[in-house]
Amino acid sequence: MKPFPAPGFMLHSEAARALYENCAKDAPIYDFHCHLSPREIEEDRRFTSITEVWLGGDHYKWRLLRACGVPERLVTGGAPDREKFLAWAEVMPRLIGSPLYHWSHLELYRYFGIDTPLSPATAGMIYDHCNAMLQTKGFSARGLIERSNVAALCTTDDPADDLKSHQAIAASGFPVSVLPAWRPDNALSIEKAGFPQYIARLRAADGGDASGFGGLCALLARRMDRFGAAGCLLSDHGMADIPFRPVTEKEVDAIYRKALRGEPVSEAEAEGYQTALLSFLAKEYAGRGWAMQLHLGVTRNRNTRAFQALGPDTGFDGIGGPVSTGKLYSFLDMLDAEGALPKTVLYSLNPNDNAALDVLAAAFPGEGVRSKVQHGAAWWFNDTARGMREQLQSCAEQGVLGNFIGMLTDSRSFLSYARHDYFRRVLCDFTGGMVQRGEYPEDWESLKTIIEGVCWKNAKEYFGF
Amino acid sequence: MKPFPAPGFMLHSEAARALYENCAKDAPIYDFHCHLSPREIEEDRRFTSITEVWLGGDHYKWRLLRACGVPERLVTGGAPDREKFLAWAEVMPRLIGSPLYHWSHLELYRYFGIDTPLSPATAGMIYDHCNAMLQTKGFSARGLIERSNVAALCTTDDPADDLKSHQAIAASGFPVSVLPAWRPDNALSIEKAGFPQYIARLRAADGGDASGFGGLCALLARRMDRFGAAGCLLSDHGMADIPFRPVTEKEVDAIYRKALRGEPVSEAEAEGYQTALLSFLAKEYAGRGWAMQLHLGVTRNRNTRAFQALGPDTGFDGIGGPVSTGKLYSFLDMLDAEGALPKTVLYSLNPNDNAALDVLAAAFPGEGVRSKVQHGAAWWFNDTARGMREQLQSCAEQGVLGNFIGMLTDSRSFLSYARHDYFRRVLCDFTGGMVQRGEYPEDWESLKTIIEGVCWKNAKEYFGF
Amino acid sequence: MKPFPAPGFMLHSEAARALYENCAKDAPIYDFHCHLSPREIEEDRRFTSITEVWLGGDHYKWRLLRACGVPERLVTGGAPDREKFLAWAEVMPRLIGSPLYHWSHLELYRYFGIDTPLSPATAGMIYDHCNAMLQTKGFSARGLIERSNVAALCTTDDPADDLKSHQAIAASGFPVSVLPAWRPDNALSIEKAGFPQYIARLRAADGGDASGFGGLCALLARRMDRFGAAGCLLSDHGMADIPFRPVTEKEVDAIYRKALRGEPVSEAEAEGYQTALLSFLAKEYAGRGWAMQLHLGVTRNRNTRAFQALGPDTGFDGIGGPVSTGKLYSFLDMLDAEGALPKTVLYSLNPNDNAALDVLAAAFPGEGVRSKVQHGAAWWFNDTARGMREQLQSCAEQGVLGNFIGMLTDSRSFLSYARHDYFRRVLCDFTGGMVQRGEYPEDWESLKTIIEGVCWKNAKEYFGF
Repeated sequence: MKPFPAPGFMLHSEAARALYENCAKDAPIYDFHCHLSPREIEEDRRFTSITEVWLGGDHYKWRLLRACGVPERLVTGGAPDREKFLAWAEVMPRLIGSPLYHWSHLELYRYFGIDTPLSPATAGMIYDHCNAMLQTKGFSARGLIERSNVAALCTTDDPADDLKSHQAIAASGFPVSVLPAWRPDNALSIEKAGFPQYIARLRAADGGDASGFGGLCALLARRMDRFGAAGCLLSDHGMADIPFRPVTEKEVDAIYRKALRGEPVSEAEAEGYQTALLSFLAKEYAGRGWAMQLHLGVTRNRNTRAFQALGPDTGFDGIGGPVSTGKLYSFLDMLDAEGALPKTVLYSLNPNDNAALDVLAAAFPGEGVRSKVQHGAAWWFNDTARGMREQLQSCAEQGVLGNFIGMLTDSRSFLSYARHDYFRRVLCDFTGGMVQRGEYPEDWESLKTIIEGVCWKNAKEYFGF
Repeated sequence: MKPFPAPGFMLHSEAARALYENCAKDAPIYDFHCHLSPREIEEDRRFTSITEVWLGGDHYKWRLLRACGVPERLVTGGAPDREKFLAWAEVMPRLIGSPLYHWSHLELYRYFGIDTPLSPATAGMIYDHCNAMLQTKGFSARGLIERSNVAALCTTDDPADDLKSHQAIAASGFPVSVLPAWRPDNALSIEKAGFPQYIARLRAADGGDASGFGGLCALLARRMDRFGAAGCLLSDHGMADIPFRPVTEKEVDAIYRKALRGEPVSEAEAEGYQTALLSFLAKEYAGRGWAMQLHLGVTRNRNTRAFQALGPDTGFDGIGGPVSTGKLYSFLDMLDAEGALPKTVLYSLNPNDNAALDVLAAAFPGEGVRSKVQHGAAWWFNDTARGMREQLQSCAEQGVLGNFIGMLTDSRSFLSYARHDYFRRVLCDFTGGMVQRGEYPEDWESLKTIIEGVCWKNAKEYFGF
Repeated sequence: MKPFPAPGFMLHSEAARALYENCAKDAPIYDFHCHLSPREIEEDRRFTSITEVWLGGDHYKWRLLRACGVPERLVTGGAPDREKFLAWAEVMPRLIGSPLYHWSHLELYRYFGIDTPLSPATAGMIYDHCNAMLQTKGFSARGLIERSNVAALCTTDDPADDLKSHQAIAASGFPVSVLPAWRPDNALSIEKAGFPQYIARLRAADGGDASGFGGLCALLARRMDRFGAAGCLLSDHGMADIPFRPVTEKEVDAIYRKALRGEPVSEAEAEGYQTALLSFLAKEYAGRGWAMQLHLGVTRNRNTRAFQALGPDTGFDGIGGPVSTGKLYSFLDMLDAEGALPKTVLYSLNPNDNAALDVLAAAFPGEGVRSKVQHGAAWWFNDTARGMREQLQSCAEQGVLGNFIGMLTDSRSFLSYARHDYFRRVLCDFTGGMVQRGEYPEDWESLKTIIEGVCWKNAKEYFGF
C-alpha cells in the first residue's frame, strides 16, 4: 500500500502544492483560541501512552466510538490503555470521509512519523512505536508545542482565574507566548443554578464588592486589567444565541440582585441582563484594543443519561441556531453607533449561517482595520475539509479572503496543531485550484501575501501579537 | 450518438468503477421502505403499456409535465396512453440536470434495454418496444421484483390493515420477503376531520375498546402484535415536525375523548396528544426491537385547486421545516433516559437540516448497535445525485459512513429499483473519488466492507431481516 | 503573465466552450430587471473617468474597500477620481474568490480591452487608457447599451413616475426597447414614516382620489394603464418577507385611513394591508398578462452611523429570511384558487431558500405556460459563480432548467452587462460539464435549445417582449 497520508495530501493541483511548499508548510502558528491547560504547560506534563495524550480527552473520537456501538468502558471507562487504543483502531477503517480519519493520520504522521493507515492489523505496532517515542525528549507538553512551530497561543480562562500558570510560564523563559484569553461565560450565565456561587468566587478573586450590577462591572474591569497585564489580547464568548433586549440600568441591577438572591430569572430577564453585560464588556474590549470572539449556535448536554454519568464536554452537544442575525445586527450596530465596537470574530455552529454572517460582517467596517468584524474559521462540527472550504468560499464571496485571520485549534490536545496543517492544505488547495482553473492570475507575489496572511500574518496583525 | 446511459454512468474514477463492479452492482436489495401495493404483488399485476406502469402513478413526472405547461389531460387526465407517453418524451430533453432524466433512462435501460435518449424522435419506437416487452414473462409485479434482485421489501401499512395480502404472498412461496411496516399516521392525526371515523375503523379491525387513551394504546399494541406476527420489523411516521409537549395521562385522555366526540382540538392539544402517543409507540418499538422511522419537514396539498380536482399525493407537496431539532433532542432524550429509545432513522425534507440531524444522531448511541440513531437516505426532493452526495458527506463527516443503512425506494412503482442502482453509483463515485484523490488509502478490504455494508448488509443487520 | 481573463475563462470543458461559442456568446440580452436611470439613457450621459462610471455608484465595491480599512474619503468621499481608482486597484489582488474580482476584470476586458490584472502596478496605465476610451464614441450611456447587444431592458419605476424619459427614448428612435417596470414598494410600505406624503405624491401624479383603500386601488390601476401604454410587461416587489394575513375590506380600509392620518399601524395591521394590496395588484397583473417579481429576504440599512452619513443603498444591507414559505404557498394558492395568479418570479436573498422555492414554484403550474411560477436568477449576494451554479442546479433538480428565464443585471451601472456574459459562461460550464461527464447525451440540438432558451428566448417568450 502507498504511504498514507501521501506527500501532497489534500493538494490537488500544481499551484496548490507550490503554495503549500513555499508559503504555508513552515509558517509559524498563532493559535489564538485553544483549550489547552496552562497548568499542564507550566508543569510540562508528560504522557505515558498514546491513549492518554490522544484519546484521553477527545470527545470527537468518543462520539464515533460510541456510534460504532463500542461500550463506554472502552471509551471513557476503566479499560486498559491498550484495549482502548485497539477499539479506536478497529473503528478507524469505517471512518471514510470523516475529519477524524484525516486528523488522526496527520497527527500520527507529523508527531510519530507513521504513514501507514491505522487499523486492527497495524494497531499493535503503532501503539508500541508511539508509546516508545512518548518517553523521549520533545514529547512533553512544551516539547510538543515547540516542535509544532507555535509562536503564540491563547488559552481560555475564567475571569476568576489567578493566571499564576501564565505568569510561571512567562517567567520560565519558554520561547512560546502563552497568553490568557478572557472568557466570562460564567458571569453571563445568570440563568444557571450556580450563578450566585460563581459571583462569590469572582469576589473572592478580586476582593471587592459586587452586590449590584455596577459593582460587578467594576470588578470585571479590574479583572480585565489583570488579564491585560498578563498579555491578554482577546475575549471569547460561547452562547446559544446573541442576546439583544435592551433594559435600563435600574432594570438590569434588579435582575442581577434577584439572581444573586438565588431567585429564578425569566428568559426575558436573562436576555436583558446578558445584553447589558455583554455591551459593557464589548465597550471595555474596544477601549483596550481587545478582540471579541462570539461562538454562537450551540446546544449543550442533550443526552441526560450521559450527562449524569460523564458530565459536560463529553460528546453530547449539538448544532443549535440558526443565529438570530437580526439581533446580531442590532447588537453590533448599538456598539458601533457609540463608537465602541471592538474587533469582532463571529462563529456559528450552524453551517447555514455562513453567507448571512459574512454579509453581516462587512456592514461594520473600521477605517484602518482589515475586516474589523469577520467570520471566524469553520467551527467544531464544521471543521472538516468541506466545512473549511465553504467558510473560505463564503468569506471570499462576501468579504475579503485576503484579510481572513485564519485557523485556530480550539482543542484540548497537544497534538492538535496538525489541524493547522490540515487547514493550510485545504487553503492552498482552494486558492491553488482557482489559479489552476484560471479564476485568479498566476500572480505569485499576491498569492504569497494572501496565503501567508491567512496562515499567520493577518492574525498577528489583527490581534496585535 | 453514444449510448446513454453509457457503461460507467456516474462513475468518474477508476476506483469508483472498480467498487461498483465488485461490490455494488450485483448486491441484493433490502428495500426497507416503499409504497408498493401488497395487493398488486399478491395478484401479480400485469401492465398493458409503459404509460400505465411508468407514468400512471408517478407524481414526480407529473410535476415536470405541468411545469412545461402540458395540459392535465395529458398528465393524469383522459388522454390515450400513447399521447401521454409522447407528452413525456417531448418534455424529456429540457430536463437536463433533473433526477427524473436519470431515473427515466436508467429504468428504460435496466428493464427494457434502451440506451438511446428518450425524445420526440425516439418516443414511438421506445413506446412500442416497451409495450411488447411488458407482455412477456418477467414483467408482472412479481417478475419485476424478482429480476431486480430484491431480497426483502417492506410496504407501508395502516394499523387497521388486515395484512391478508402479506399473508397470501408469504403462503404463495414467493421467494422475496414482502413484510408489512407499521405506519400509524392516521392514529396520530387527531387534528384531522376524519379522526373519529378512523378510530372506529381501528376498533372494527381489532374488536376491542378504544373509548379512552389507555384503550387506544392497548388496541394499538394488539395490532402491533399482529404486524409482528406478519414479519414487521419497523415503523414509519410522516409529519410536518416532531411533536414535543409533554402532558399528563389525564390530560391526554381528555384531549383524545374530546376529539372522539368530534370537537376541534387546539394546536397545543394536538401536540400534547401526539407527544404522548408517539412516546407510547416508540417504547413499544424499543421493546419489540422494531426501528422507528421519522419523516419530517413536509408541507402537503398546498394547491387547493389541484387538491380538489386530483386529491392528495399528486405533486403539490412542498418542503417545510426546518425540523425543530431542539424538540427532537428532547423527545429522543426522554425515551433514552427511560432506557426505551428504539433504533431510529431520521429524515427531513429540508436539505438545510443535514448537518444538525447527523450531529444529533450521534448524541444517542447504543452499546452493541452501529449508529442506533441515524440519518436516513436523501428523501424525496433531496433524492438527487447531489442530494445523495450531500447526505453521504454529512453522514461521513458527523457520523460513521460505514454504518449507514443506505437506500430505499420510497416508491409506488415496480420499476423504481433502478434508484438503488443510481444510489450505488453515486455511493461508489463518492467513496471511489476519495480513494482516487488520496483521501482514503487503497485498502480494498475495508472499502468492500463499507460499500457492501451501505448497499445492503447494514440494513439487514440493523433491522434484523 | 498570461492574459486575464483568458479565452475560455470559466469554461472548464470542451462541451462548455462549444456551447458558449455557438449558443451564448453572441446572443442578445433581454435585461428584464435593472436599476439604470431612464433619465441618463434619455440624456445619453457621458462619463469623465472610469472612476465615475465604474466606482461612482457601486455599493458592492464600496463594501470591499471598507472591509480593507480604506477611509470613506476614498470610497464615497471627496478624494480625486484617480486616488479612488488607485485605492480600488490596491484592494483588488486580495479579492481572490470574490465575484467583484471577476466582474471587474470582465468589465475592463469587454469594454476597454484590458486583459492584464488590475493591481497597484497596472492601475495608472489602466486608468489613463480607460479614461481616454471613455471620451470616444460608443462610451455614452446609449453607446454602452448598444455595444452590449441589448435588445430590451426594463428599468425600475415608481407608480408616481411620469415615464417621460421612457417616452422620450422611444420617440428618439433608440433601437433598444427601454421599458418601465412597475415597482410599488412605496405604496406597500404603510409602516414607514413618509407613507402619507407618498400617497399625496401618487394623487398628484394621477389627479384622482385615494382617501380610502378602494380609491387607492383604482388610482393604482389607472397608473398601471399608463405603465402598460409605455410598454410595461412586469412588476417588481422588494420586501423582507411575503405578507399573508387576510383581512376584510372594511379592516384594510380602516388601516389605510389610519396610516394616512399619520397614526402608527401595528405590525399585524401592516401585514394585513400588504396582503390586501399585494393581492389586488397580483390580480391586476394576472389580468394584464404582466409578470410579478418578488424579491424577498432582505434586511436593510443595518448600520445606523453609515445610514445617517450616506443614506440607503450604500452597502449596509444584509441577508434576512429565510422566507416564510408557508405564507408564500398560502398567498399564491389564494390567487390561484381565484384563477388570478400572475406569472411569478421568486427571489430570496437567503441562499438556504433555494430548494424550498424551486419546489414551491412547481406547485403552481399553468397550462400553456412554461414554469409559470419560477425561481429567479441568483440575487445580489448570491450572484457569484457558486451562487449561480447552485441556483441552476436547484432549478434543474426541482424544476425544469430548460424553462428558466435566466439572467438580469439588477444593476445601476452601464458596464454591468458583463454579468450576462459571466452568467452565460457559468451556465455553459454547468451544462457542458454534465455533457462531458456523460450525465446528459451529446444531443447538440437539445442543448442549443436549452442554452439559447436560458440566455434570452425564454425571457422573451415568458414576458412577451
